[in-house]
Amino acid sequence: MKVDLLAFTAITPTALEVLEYQRGTAAADHLAELGGRECYQSFHRPNPKTSDNEDYLKHILEIDHTSIMEHSSATFRLTEVSRNLLVELTRHRHLSFSVQSQRYVDESYGKMIIPPDIMGDASLSGLVEKIDHFHQDAKILYDEIVDTMMKEGYKRKQARQAARAVLTGGHETRIVVTGNIRAWRHVIHMRFSEHADVEICEMAKQILGHLRVIAPNQVQDISDDPRS
Amino acid sequence: MKVDLLAFTAITPTALEVLEYQRGTAAADHLAELGGRECYQSFHRPNPKTSDNEDYLKHILEIDHTSIMEHSSATFRLTEVSRNLLVELTRHRHLSFSVQSQRYVDESYGKMIIPPDIMGDASLSGLVEKIDHFHQDAKILYDEIVDTMMKEGYKRKQARQAARAVLTGGHETRIVVTGNIRAWRHVIHMRFSEHADVEICEMAKQILGHLRVIAPNQVQDISDDPRS
Amino acid sequence: MKVDLLAFTAITPTALEVLEYQRGTAAADHLAELGGRECYQSFHRPNPKTSDNEDYLKHILEIDHTSIMEHSSATFRLTEVSRNLLVELTRHRHLSFSVQSQRYVDESYGKMIIPPDIMGDASLSGLVEKIDHFHQDAKILYDEIVDTMMKEGYKRKQARQAARAVLTGGHETRIVVTGNIRAWRHVIHMRFSEHADVEICEMAKQILGHLRVIAPNQVQDISDDPRS
Amino acid sequence: MKVDLLAFTAITPTALEVLEYQRGTAAADHLAELGGRECYQSFHRPNPKTSDNEDYLKHILEIDHTSIMEHSSATFRLTEVSRNLLVELTRHRHLSFSVQSQRYVDESYGKMIIPPDIMGDASLSGLVEKIDHFHQDAKILYDEIVDTMMKEGYKRKQARQAARAVLTGGHETRIVVTGNIRAWRHVIHMRFSEHADVEICEMAKQILGHLRVIAPNQVQDISDDPRS
Repeated sequence: MKVDLLAFTAITPTALEVLEYQRGTAAADHLAELGGRECYQSFHRPNPKTSDNEDYLKHILEIDHTSIMEHSSATFRLTEVSRNLLVELTRHRHLSFSVQSQRYVDESYGKMIIPPDIMGDASLSGLVEKIDHFHQDAKILYDEIVDTMMKEGYKRKQARQAARAVLTGGHETRIVVTGNIRAWRHVIHMRFSEHADVEICEMAKQILGHLRVIAPNQVQDISDDPRS
Repeated sequence: MKVDLLAFTAITPTALEVLEYQRGTAAADHLAELGGRECYQSFHRPNPKTSDNEDYLKHILEIDHTSIMEHSSATFRLTEVSRNLLVELTRHRHLSFSVQSQRYVDESYGKMIIPPDIMGDASLSGLVEKIDHFHQDAKILYDEIVDTMMKEGYKRKQARQAARAVLTGGHETRIVVTGNIRAWRHVIHMRFSEHADVEICEMAKQILGHLRVIAPNQVQDISDDPRS
Repeated sequence: MKVDLLAFTAITPTALEVLEYQRGTAAADHLAELGGRECYQSFHRPNPKTSDNEDYLKHILEIDHTSIMEHSSATFRLTEVSRNLLVELTRHRHLSFSVQSQRYVDESYGKMIIPPDIMGDASLSGLVEKIDHFHQDAKILYDEIVDTMMKEGYKRKQARQAARAVLTGGHETRIVVTGNIRAWRHVIHMRFSEHADVEICEMAKQILGHLRVIAPNQVQDISDDPRS
Repeated sequence: MKVDLLAFTAITPTALEVLEYQRGTAAADHLAELGGRECYQSFHRPNPKTSDNEDYLKHILEIDHTSIMEHSSATFRLTEVSRNLLVELTRHRHLSFSVQSQRYVDESYGKMIIPPDIMGDASLSGLVEKIDHFHQDAKILYDEIVDTMMKEGYKRKQARQAARAVLTGGHETRIVVTGNIRAWRHVIHMRFSEHADVEICEMAKQILGHLRVIAPNQVQDISDDPRS
C-alpha cells in the first residue's frame, strides 16, 4: 500500500493578517483557529490559556466544536490497495473520490493485494501461493470474456464491464481521495481501530501520519496506537 | 435481481388538513406540494393552472424547485444483485445503506450474478458455464482460507475478512437502501441510461416502476425508456 | 410554537414478512431492525438477548451502529417559530427544508416571537411591550419600503426582498422540515440541552415527544430532561 | 461587501510528478485533471485534443464529470454582509461555515447593510435614512434588553441570545466559508443570476472572480454576466 499526499490547503497573506501568524503553525491549523475566532470575534486572544494554536485547538477538541476543522482538506493517492478497501472507504460520504474505473480500464494488468493478515504470517504462506494462482486464473478468464464478447460485436467498454464480474475483492485499484480534516478525523476514528479491517486500518494509520505534519494540532488528541 | 419496496412515507391527518386533500393523490406527492405551498403561502391555490397536484408538480419540475421532493422517501430491498452494483450504488451519497457484511456473514453460500449482457445472449452460453465454474472455485478457496486461518488461531471474523479477497465482483449481496425522492430521481437520471452499467440500469428501471405507484407526479417527467 | 407531525415512514407487507413482525413494534423501529439484521443475516434472531425490537435497538445504540436509523424519517411543520430558530436549524445539513420565503410572501402580517426567557418572566414584562412596539415599527417601515419601491417601478419581489432587511430575528416563520431518525437524534443531542438556545431547545423537546410515539425504541437512550 | 480569499488548495511535488506539470496550470486545475486521469489511467494523454489542461477540463464540463472538481477547495472571508445573506448561503449544504455568533458577540457595534437596490438608487435615499435610523433604534433596544436581563440575574450569553430577537435581517455579520470547486460552481449557478437576491448575486460574482485566478479552467464555461 502506498498513501501519497497530493494536495493540502495553503493560506493567503490575508489569512495571515486576520489572525496574526504564529511561528511554527501549520497552515491548516492556522485556518481552523481563524474559523474559531471568527465565531467569537476573539482575534485579540483574550484568554491567555488558549492564546497559542495548540492550546486553542486542544480546547476546541474538548468542547467538540470540530466544524472549524472543515476549512482545510487533504488529498491522497492510494495505490496498491484492494477493491475491498474501496468499498469500505466510499461509505464515508464526506470524502470525494476519483477511482480507477473497471468499466474503462484494462484490468488484466492488475495485481492481487494479499490480505495483510495472510501476507504477514509465515504459517499461511501456502495460502499466498493459492491466492496468487487463483488471481492468475481470474485474469485469464477476464481476458477470455473480453475477447469473446468483442468477437461477438460488443464494444470494449461493454465487454470490460461484464468481465469485471470475475475480478476479486483483492484486485488492485487506485484512488484519489480528498477530505477535510473533520472528515479524516472521522475516518481515523472508525478505521484506525482493532475492530476495523486490517488493510484499511493501515491506511488510516498512514493518513494520520500525514496529518501529523500538515495539521498536527487538529489531531493532537489522537493516539499513535489503533483504538481498541 | 429483486427490487422490493419495504417502506415509504405516509402522511398524517394534520398534513391532509394543511393542504386540503385531493382524491387520488399519493401521499408522497401530497407532501411535496405541501412543502412547495409553504414556501409561497399559497395553500389557497391562487393559480388555477397549478391547482391540482399533477400540474403543480409539473411546474415545480420545470422551475427545478426539487428540494421539496426531499420530504418523502422510499426504502428498497435489493437481492440477487452483485457486489459490483453495490460499489456503484454507494457512490450516491444521499442514499442510506444497510448491506450484508462480508466480514461477518459466511459467504460460501453466495450465488454468482452473471452479468445481464452475458446471461441474455445465447451465443455467450459458454462463458456462463466458465464463470459459474470459476465461482465454485472461488468459494472452495474461500472455505479453505477460512478453515486454515481458524486452525491457526484467527477469529472467525478475521478469517472471513481475509478470505473475502477471493470473492468476485459478481458475488451476490443483499442491500436495504433508502433515499428521498430527489435522491432517487438523481439515481434514475444517472443510471437509467444506455451509458450506465446494464445491471444497475435494470435496478433503476425497477425503482422507477415503484415510484410510478407511490410518487407518480414527482416522476412524471421521466421516460419509461432509458436515457440515450 | 407549534410542532406538528406531518409525515413518517410506513412499512409494506414485504417488510413485515422479511422480518417477522412483532406486536407493538412501531414501523420505524421495525425497519431499523430489518436494516441491522440484513447486515448480519440474522433474521432468525440467533441471540435471545436481542430477540425483541427494544433489546435489539438498545444493543445497536450501545455499539453505535446508528446508520440503520437512517431508513425511516419524520416530517414536521413548525409554526410560530422565529427566523432565529430557522438560522440555527438550517445548519443541520442532513435535514430537508421548505421555508416560507421572505422574498415572495407579504411579511407585514407576521407576528413577533418573543424569546421564551423574556415571555416567561413576569419581571421582564416591560421588555415584552417594548419588543412588540418595535415589531410594529418594523412592519410599518417594511410596508413603506415596499410601497416606495413599487412606486419607483420595482417589482413586488424586488421590493419585498429589499424590505426584509428591517424584519427582525424574532419575526415569525413557517417551516416544513424532514429528517431521518439518525439526523433527528443528532438535532436532539445538540439542541435539547441547557447550552442551546431556549426556543430551539423547546422545539427539540417536542420533536422528541413525537419520536417517542413513532420510533420509541430508537430514542430509548435519550432522557426526558435536557442535557446539562 | 468584502470577499477575501483566505485559503485554497496547493499541490505537492508528488502530484506534479504523477501528472507531468504543464506551465501555467493552476494547482486546483492540475489536481482536477489528475483526478480525471486516474479514473481512466490516461496519464500518458492518449487523446491530443484534450492533452492540455484547459481542453481536458472543457471536455470534463461537457460530459458533466464534475466530481473531479471536488478535490480542491477555496475558503473566503465575507465581511460587511447581512444576516439575510447568511440565511440563504447556509442552505448550500456542501459549504462549511464559521459564523460570528449572535449568542456570544456583543452586537451593539454591528452596522446595517442597506440592500444594494436601495443603496444604489438616488431616488430611494429617503429610505436609507429611515433604515439607518431604525437600525439605531434596534441597537438601543438590544442594549436595553441585555442590560435589563443581566440586572435580573441572567447570564450575558442568555441576555444576548434573547436580545438578538430585535436585530434585523440587514444586520452585519462575518463569515468564514469553505467549499470545493464543484460546490462553488453550484453556488454560482444558483446565485449569480438575475433571479437571485441582489446581495448574494454580488457575492457570487466576487467569488467567481477569485476562482478565475485559482481555478480558471474549472470555471471556463461560466459567463461574466449573471444568468438571466
